[in-house]
Parts: sequence; structure tokens; C-alpha cells
Amino acid sequence: MTLLNETIKNVAPLNEAAMHEAQKHLDFLLKPQGSLGKLEDIARQMAGITGKVKNRIGKKVFMVMCSDNGIEAEKIASFPQSVSMLVTDCMLKGLSGVSVLGRHAGADLRVIDLGLAESPTTPGIIDRKIRKSTGNFLKTQAMTRQEAIQAIEVGISETLKAIDEGYDLIGTGEVGIGNTTTSSAIIHVLTGKPVDSVTGRGAGLTDEGLAHKKNVIARAVALHKPDASDPVDVLAKVGGFDIAGMTGTFLAAASRRKPVVIDGFISGVAALLAYRLCPLSRGYMIPSHSSHEPGSVAVAEALDLRPMLYMNMRLGEGTGAALAFNIIEASMAIMNEQGTFGDIGMA
Amino acid sequence: MTLLNETIKNVAPLNEAAMHEAQKHLDFLLKPQGSLGKLEDIARQMAGITGKVKNRIGKKVFMVMCSDNGIEAEKIASFPQSVSMLVTDCMLKGLSGVSVLGRHAGADLRVIDLGLAESPTTPGIIDRKIRKSTGNFLKTQAMTRQEAIQAIEVGISETLKAIDEGYDLIGTGEVGIGNTTTSSAIIHVLTGKPVDSVTGRGAGLTDEGLAHKKNVIARAVALHKPDASDPVDVLAKVGGFDIAGMTGTFLAAASRRKPVVIDGFISGVAALLAYRLCPLSRGYMIPSHSSHEPGSVAVAEALDLRPMLYMNMRLGEGTGAALAFNIIEASMAIMNEQGTFGDIGMA
Repeated sequence: MTLLNETIKNVAPLNEAAMHEAQKHLDFLLKPQGSLGKLEDIARQMAGITGKVKNRIGKKVFMVMCSDNGIEAEKIASFPQSVSMLVTDCMLKGLSGVSVLGRHAGADLRVIDLGLAESPTTPGIIDRKIRKSTGNFLKTQAMTRQEAIQAIEVGISETLKAIDEGYDLIGTGEVGIGNTTTSSAIIHVLTGKPVDSVTGRGAGLTDEGLAHKKNVIARAVALHKPDASDPVDVLAKVGGFDIAGMTGTFLAAASRRKPVVIDGFISGVAALLAYRLCPLSRGYMIPSHSSHEPGSVAVAEALDLRPMLYMNMRLGEGTGAALAFNIIEASMAIMNEQGTFGDIGMA
Repeated sequence: MTLLNETIKNVAPLNEAAMHEAQKHLDFLLKPQGSLGKLEDIARQMAGITGKVKNRIGKKVFMVMCSDNGIEAEKIASFPQSVSMLVTDCMLKGLSGVSVLGRHAGADLRVIDLGLAESPTTPGIIDRKIRKSTGNFLKTQAMTRQEAIQAIEVGISETLKAIDEGYDLIGTGEVGIGNTTTSSAIIHVLTGKPVDSVTGRGAGLTDEGLAHKKNVIARAVALHKPDASDPVDVLAKVGGFDIAGMTGTFLAAASRRKPVVIDGFISGVAALLAYRLCPLSRGYMIPSHSSHEPGSVAVAEALDLRPMLYMNMRLGEGTGAALAFNIIEASMAIMNEQGTFGDIGMA
């Protein structure tokens, strides 16, 4: 069996009994029932994930998938392809957004090259390059079906490795010029929502640039006719190695019963692909922020996972997920430390 | 001059030059301009508050104002008045929601009794009791005008004391059975919004209880006719000592150029009173979460400060503000640690 199929097969449902016990504990805490809202939802979900009513987060990690997208040749991005390498290089130097916010959250970074056109010079990259950039999907498929599976499996194997090393909270992140274009194309196909409503300015396109980006997506989808019922087909035709790698991270985390945090738009698209490949994987996902990109609304709807943070952020890299780590830990603190009606002698 | 008038006089505008310099630094960081959204807004605001482009948060504190409300006699709350004392007692024991989340945020708690009907037995309360509970404002004013000023000044003096002791990030919180009723009455008067749209279920009223609560507020406002242009009059007639104390915290923090975090609905009403008393104080306020209470929407509009967190929380105590502390510190980390285009040799 392939690693992808085996991983999907290993994803089991959340532990309902533990969630029920967690709810009983939450209802016995010194507060009106339900008054801690999403902190309670996370606590209950975490019980379902681990099978334990009370949990603690130990080692935390961000799995950052880096790759280039051939569609950049159509000038759909605000920056040239070389910027992917520069951002990745800054990440390895500890200077990028997720470097700072990941550190602030007490998380380590794993930076994986699945297909950067140029390789960073700073040491520390995990070299899993499939090839230099995907193809320009206005002319050819972004990648072959086999490459799409390979990229998902890179995400799976690197994430399993991190879990084996003791990480028990996993954040998702990415670098890849052009990846709001691939993400909008995928969400358009997967949800059937009009290109217009799921395509945004990315790092800062003009009105003209945005119109062109929408046009490119519509033409590419008309050309390749991706099969919405086949996530790997959609990935191969209009996706990217970065998104595929993140899809692998979501599946791997679920297969090992670890919580995995969605970042913003691009990461959410990868989460939706994982959900479509393996519906049970959704139980292990925790949403973080609502990206400024309009497509993130469609992602939240399709996953039925609503963000907690509304920060108008649109940097990607995992920066929104990093802000959610502290909230998840706050939820654990409530479960572990808040007093109960029993503590004050009330039944 | 009274402490209240002196404090208001000491509130100065944000430092525009420092905000301008902070914006220049933000625009030179390795990211698309503006892509860190509200993290950038907070960084800029913090520069305006302190006058320094780069800032660090040192000691953090929650000022929790505890008091009872005479309107509880009208059965507008889900719990009896004695619960205010129990919650305060649990807070002093480290078992309440804000005890746990404040500790998680690395903040100390100052718990101040302005008018609890019963005094907690656990040591640690700061006793500034004005009297045992306000009056039942369906029959009489909640407090005299002089008492309203006195309660604001308790908040001011306790907050100034904390600032003198080196706290430089201040959270607001409260305990007081019946204080969503006082808050809804105040926001109804201050904004002119219908009682219906700004009144919610508090800790968990039934449909019948909610209808009764709305009726009580409407009758009380008709009886006392609070002057919307005079915040102290509104506080005295339909407010509470807890809200007045928090209003004092907002004013004191602004007068000493310290950032002060709004919690949810009740704290937001206190912030709006501070803003109406002293428009410049608004610059020092940082919003946190959107409470589940419907009136919090009117508060955010009237203050024009939009929350960052949507957690469906409605516990109060300062629990939402506690979650914002980490985000504020994340914003500082970005200013202090993220790389610039200069770091990678680009102009």
C-alpha cells in the first residue's frame, strides 16, 4: 500500500467517550455552562484527539512547505519567483514572520523545500525537492498525478518524523510566490463558487492585476477540467507542491492523533483537500485566523470550521496559526487549573 | 481639583511622530506592506502610547472590579447576589476563569471590592467598599452622583498605584451579578439603540427572563431619564460600582500613557464611559474579544474599536482580555525581531 493510502487508513474517529467526559468536567467548572465558548470547544476536541480528558501541550512545531509555482510566469503575483527563495532563506535565518511568531509561541520550525526554483544558501532546509517549480498550468498541468501524490507523501513523511521526535502540536505554513492563485483555482473547483468570489489580491495586486489573475484561473480550469471529486486530480492540474505537502501534514497528524492548526487561506485549501481525501481527518484540525483573502470564507464554509482570530492578516507562512497556539494552550489551562463547584463545596 | 478631573486633564494625545516612525519600520519589514494587519495596528498604537518605536511589555496586571447591583432584587440575573462573593473568593484562591487565564498570560491580579454585598473570606481583597451593593434602580438611583465619582476614583487610584509599582500592560475585569443589566441600560442610554438590540441573556436567562430584563431596563430608564451627554449621571442612575471602577482604570491608564485592554461587554461599556468623559483616552485602549452578549456590537461601534477574537465567550472577569495579552506581545515581537529588507541587502 502507498504511504498516502496507509495514512488515510490509519485515521480514526475522535474518542467520543473522552469528549463526553471532558464536557462533564467543563460543565462542573466554576462558570455558567458554555460561557468559555471556543475555549471549551477546543478542550473537548483535544480530549477527542488524545483520548484523555486533561491534556498538556509539550513540544510544538511548524511544518513549513516551500515551493515555486510555474503559473508565476503569467504575472499573477506581486513578486517574482526569486522571492520564494529569499523568504525561505530569511525563515532559516530566524527573520521571517513565522520565525518570529513561531518563536513567540515556543514552537520550532521545520522548513521543507518541495520545489523551490532556487535553493536557499542558509543551512537548515530539509531538501525534499521534487523538481524546480511546478509547470505553468495555463499551458500544461502543474504536475503529474504521480508528483502530486509524491508531494503529499513528502508532507506525510516529514510530519510523521516530527511526531516521532515528540512534537504534539503541529502548525501548518507555506512559502510560494503564486500560491494564492493555485489556492483560488483549487477552492473554485472544489466548491463550485465563482472565481470572482474566491480570488483576491494576494500580496497586493492592482485592480488590473486582480482581473488578470481571475482570468488566468478561469482559463486554466476550462483547459484542464479538474475532477472536483478527485482531490489529487485537482492538485495535479492547478495546485502546487506546497499545498500538497500541507495536505500531507494534515493527514499525517490525524493518523497519529495529533492536533494540527490551519493557518489562513492557502493552508485552509490544503486542509479541505485532506478532508475530501479523508473526512475523518477534519476532527484533528483547529482553525486559527480569517485571512484577508476572500477565498478563506469559502474554505471555512466548506470545512465548517470557523476561525477564532480576525486580524486582517495576509502574510501566510503560518503566522496566523502561530497566534492560535497560545489560545489552544489557554484552553488546556482552563481544563487543568480552573476550579470546580466541588472545590467550593457545591454539588 | 478632584482626582477625576485631574486624571482627565492629564490624558494627552498619542505621539504622532513615534507612530509615523513605527509605520516606517513596519513598511521596511520583510513582508508585503500591511500584511500583518492588526499586529501592525497594535505596534503603531503602542509607539503612539509610549513614544518609542520599539517596545517591550514588562509586568502585566488585571484590575478586577467587584461589586453588587441592587437591581438583582428584580430577578434579572441567572444567579443570586451571593454568587458575586463566591466568584470573587474563587478569584482570590486562583480558581476562577481570569485567575487561570491571567496566570497563563503571565499577569498578576488585583481584586478590588467596591461594593460586594458580602465580603469574601479568602485574604487578598483590596477593600475599597463604598457601600454594600448599589440601590435597586427600578425604585431609586443605583447610587448618588458623588458615589459614582467616588467609584471612578477608586478605579483611578488603584490603577495609578499599580502603574507606580511598574505594571505596564493593564487588563480590565469585573465581577458583579446583574452587571449585564446595568451595562445594557447604560449602552441603551449612551447610544440610543433600542433596549431590545443591546440586551442579552447574561449568564443564561430563559426567553421569559430575557423579556423581563428588557422590561426592567426600559422602565428604569423611563423613571430616571439619565442624561446621555453626562456619563456620570448615567452611571449614577442605572450603572454599578464595578463599571465605574473600570472607567477609572481606563482613564488612569491613559493619563499615564499605558495600554489598557478592554475585555467584553461590561468592560466595553466602561471604556465607552471613559471615552465620553475624555475622548483622548480612547487612544490607549486595545480591544480584545467580541462577547456573546448582543450589546457588545453597539459598544464596538460607538468606540469604533473592533475586536480581534471571536470566541463566543461570555464569562467576563477579564477572560477575553487575558487572551489578547499574548497577541499584543506578538505584535511587539514583530517590531523587535522581524528582519528588514536591509537585513538581506535590499533597499
